[in-house]
Amino acid sequence: MITVTLIGAGNVATHLYKIFNNTDQVLVKQWYNRTLKPIERYKTKLKITDCLEDLKETDLYIIAVSDDAISELSSALPFSDRLVVHTSGSASLYDLDMKHKRGVFYPLQTFSKDVDLDFTEVPICIEALHKPDYKFLKELGIALGCKVHKVNSDQRKALHLAAVFANNFTNHIYRIAHEICEKDSAEFDILKPLIKETARKIETVSPYRAQTGPAKRGDKKTIKKQLKALDNSTHKAIYDIMTKSIKNTYGQR
Amino acid sequence: MITVTLIGAGNVATHLYKIFNNTDQVLVKQWYNRTLKPIERYKTKLKITDCLEDLKETDLYIIAVSDDAISELSSALPFSDRLVVHTSGSASLYDLDMKHKRGVFYPLQTFSKDVDLDFTEVPICIEALHKPDYKFLKELGIALGCKVHKVNSDQRKALHLAAVFANNFTNHIYRIAHEICEKDSAEFDILKPLIKETARKIETVSPYRAQTGPAKRGDKKTIKKQLKALDNSTHKAIYDIMTKSIKNTYGQR
Repeated sequence: MITVTLIGAGNVATHLYKIFNNTDQVLVKQWYNRTLKPIERYKTKLKITDCLEDLKETDLYIIAVSDDAISELSSALPFSDRLVVHTSGSASLYDLDMKHKRGVFYPLQTFSKDVDLDFTEVPICIEALHKPDYKFLKELGIALGCKVHKVNSDQRKALHLAAVFANNFTNHIYRIAHEICEKDSAEFDILKPLIKETARKIETVSPYRAQTGPAKRGDKKTIKKQLKALDNSTHKAIYDIMTKSIKNTYGQR
Repeated sequence: MITVTLIGAGNVATHLYKIFNNTDQVLVKQWYNRTLKPIERYKTKLKITDCLEDLKETDLYIIAVSDDAISELSSALPFSDRLVVHTSGSASLYDLDMKHKRGVFYPLQTFSKDVDLDFTEVPICIEALHKPDYKFLKELGIALGCKVHKVNSDQRKALHLAAVFANNFTNHIYRIAHEICEKDSAEFDILKPLIKETARKIETVSPYRAQTGPAKRGDKKTIKKQLKALDNSTHKAIYDIMTKSIKNTYGQR
């Protein structure tokens, strides 16, 4: 049985708690957060605390807080030589205090408090300073039913940046599509099969080959009509730069 | 049994042929294209022709060609008072010659020649000048197993524009994510569960509520780091405008 300490109470920490709780092989023994309120409802199941000094020894400490707070928190932990990981896509392994065995356990998914997630669909990107720690984290990921990937810091940063495009920007584009529909009282729901198929398609075809549409075809007439139809200047600017970028990719003028 | 004439040999016409062929209730009797080569392999199953004058009467004529060619082709059809539809998202119903009974049969999906499609996942947007024609097209859509939607010209144009965002731009964003990964030898495949979940999430939550990430949080430090990490000026410009647009949406500065 692996004993774990959770540090932080955001989406990642909360989802990790849920998945740990569903596994025989992991026991979350204690949970720290700077305020107790968000973790208060777990107090019958484990020790909760807002005081780092109270933390006891466990096999693993998971720091799931904002990037800015990782370094300070890891230094303030009242012990050394234990395995301490953070869950950030962009923070360095070296942001953790060197008194610890250091690692990264980065779940590359989009977490929302109110949307449940199938953890077998969560890739975990693992990095560790020492081989035995890497092996330990890998086995933990597998025990959770996740797909585990060995990813160094540069790769992790690239994945995190790519994820901002693939998730944040994509979702915002859905949002713009939603606005465009609403303006003309068209049902956004009609687009949902298209959105699903767009994501599904690249499971078998590269995004480069999957591209379709007026920009790829160089269909100037449609592009002009659509730019004219957009009355939000930011949406216009996004249409324009995306169209140019697609044209460049496929050698259209 | 509904008899159909197909006009054009692009992705939409080819996919429509496949789905018609799988239904007892529809018979594709003839297929016109300005060149025979793309449809030659169907000649044992139906009449193919590159001469409009050769076309016989059928219950329905489907013009699935580029927007620019719809008007001329519909005028050149050697008969009148038959039901003629186009499949375009942006062309007007009135682009069809007024000698016909006019309609629109717009499948809102992304079609690729080499990717098979589940037609129950294809919404068909229908418009017709006359009620009986609308009813006829609706029943055809239902016979194909599709979801059928009554959509007027303004709504269809809005949906088509929204689809350029939701499909073309989204796919291009996948492409950029792919490039970012490749540059640091990170596996693009690790992002696929995230891409799938991003699309899945909005089936139950609005895109507005599903948004996450540094721009929504107003996390200036991460935004600055990521902008610095992008060395492609177009990708930088896309990151910048998308970030600004998200910030505006959520009142971040």
